[in-house]
Amino acid sequence: MAVRPLILALFLCLLLSIFTTSHGYKTHRRGRPCKELSFYFHDILYKGHNKDNATSAIVGAPDWGNRTEFARPFDFGDLVVFDDPITLDNNLHSTPVGRAQGMYVYDQLNAFSAWLSFSFVFNSTQHKGSLNFAGPDPILNQTRIVSITSGTGDFFMARGIAILTTDAYEGNYYFRLRVDIKLHECWE
Amino acid sequence: MAVRPLILALFLCLLLSIFTTSHGYKTHRRGRPCKELSFYFHDILYKGHNKDNATSAIVGAPDWGNRTEFARPFDFGDLVVFDDPITLDNNLHSTPVGRAQGMYVYDQLNAFSAWLSFSFVFNSTQHKGSLNFAGPDPILNQTRIVSITSGTGDFFMARGIAILTTDAYEGNYYFRLRVDIKLHECWE
Amino acid sequence: MAVRPLILALFLCLLLSIFTTSHGYKTHRRGRPCKELSFYFHDILYKGHNKDNATSAIVGAPDWGNRTEFARPFDFGDLVVFDDPITLDNNLHSTPVGRAQGMYVYDQLNAFSAWLSFSFVFNSTQHKGSLNFAGPDPILNQTRIVSITSGTGDFFMARGIAILTTDAYEGNYYFRLRVDIKLHECWE
Repeated sequence: MAVRPLILALFLCLLLSIFTTSHGYKTHRRGRPCKELSFYFHDILYKGHNKDNATSAIVGAPDWGNRTEFARPFDFGDLVVFDDPITLDNNLHSTPVGRAQGMYVYDQLNAFSAWLSFSFVFNSTQHKGSLNFAGPDPILNQTRIVSITSGTGDFFMARGIAILTTDAYEGNYYFRLRVDIKLHECWE
Repeated sequence: MAVRPLILALFLCLLLSIFTTSHGYKTHRRGRPCKELSFYFHDILYKGHNKDNATSAIVGAPDWGNRTEFARPFDFGDLVVFDDPITLDNNLHSTPVGRAQGMYVYDQLNAFSAWLSFSFVFNSTQHKGSLNFAGPDPILNQTRIVSITSGTGDFFMARGIAILTTDAYEGNYYFRLRVDIKLHECWE
Repeated sequence: MAVRPLILALFLCLLLSIFTTSHGYKTHRRGRPCKELSFYFHDILYKGHNKDNATSAIVGAPDWGNRTEFARPFDFGDLVVFDDPITLDNNLHSTPVGRAQGMYVYDQLNAFSAWLSFSFVFNSTQHKGSLNFAGPDPILNQTRIVSITSGTGDFFMARGIAILTTDAYEGNYYFRLRVDIKLHECWE
């Protein structure tokens, strides 16, 4: 006799559980990403005479600057467009698994800091689709966190963070970043 | 006698259901958007002598480029600001239902590809508010997917994707895009 | 006898409740933000002779414009990079609690409207981390709403809106905005 209400309650809970978890995405605890990936990307700035191997170029600068060298002080106002190879290890000549495309702009008056607005565009056997990044990158900090606001393809509707580490930095004409991606919202 | 626990269980489930579903938004399965809309928008680039009817202009270019024609190769580094009419059909002269405003930058070294960062700004009887788009647009693909990262007004907190189709393309000084919006997060 | 199913049902509901609410974030009703904050920020544009106290500079302009004064009409095409102090009250000389860093671009052909893409970068005892803003800002409206798409640190994964109010505006070479932040997605 008393079993029937239990079965009904169980059934209702099950229904409810299906209802509340079937909305097509999974979120995870703050400390436990639903997906983790690591990459490197490599930026070689155009500085007037290296168009053949440059992967980025200054396209906007303040009135006191120009497009072949950084403005002083702190590159403030320089806007750079880039198409940088993404590799799995820190070797510039490894086969790229995608491209980091978009722009950054130096936007701090008293220190080197860039504002990032770009995508990872994947087209490899492992990953297809894009991830979009945004946020401030105080480049002199060894480690910085930027936001991942969205994605497409394998990364449909993803959100999360990326931990950026400077792996090499040569007078900000060449730099290599390690990017540790932690997605905290993944859609199945 | 056995009915009371059932009623209590029901009541608790109901409470729980209210609690877990009343957070003010609805998400849907990956394959089933919560809102779908389609529009066209029209971009006429300024190329030195058409200021009266141009809706966009190059405002940044690499050192080897200028602001009245695209840089070679592949327009790389050209940054364009636009204020383009949005229409319900593919006729440039239809009454606009809003404006597509923001920028795009050509950011691929070996192909035509733009990075989009713009909004749809609606102000019609059907729609009020904005939708924000971001992501890579490899323009020579017939169909591309960009992210919708947020919105305001009727599109408060919305997220989703937009499928872009080139409906017309004339030497990239005039293009018309069809935009199929699929929202996968809608707030009521 | 009838008590056991009730206890079991309760236990199941509790489990379910933990399962459905433990995914590490809290969303709230549309009308009830999970966090509210208010700030002011102050923008002083470089106009050719004030490099010492300017906090922003034109770095991109259409072919008919330049980088020391706004383009006509409606500043269309002017892209401005900024590093503006954030204060708790409307006094430019109050101790900043952070910096508003990023860019805006005037992108309307027939009215003053800016497209915003920037971050609040906090580094005070009260707040650490960043909030990322995006969206159209029709600056002549007394009140505008832009999107908050993401955040880091104290604002990890946050989403919401910001209500912008022009608190001072002097020929668009100096402006002061009041920013009322309403987060509708907060991660604990």
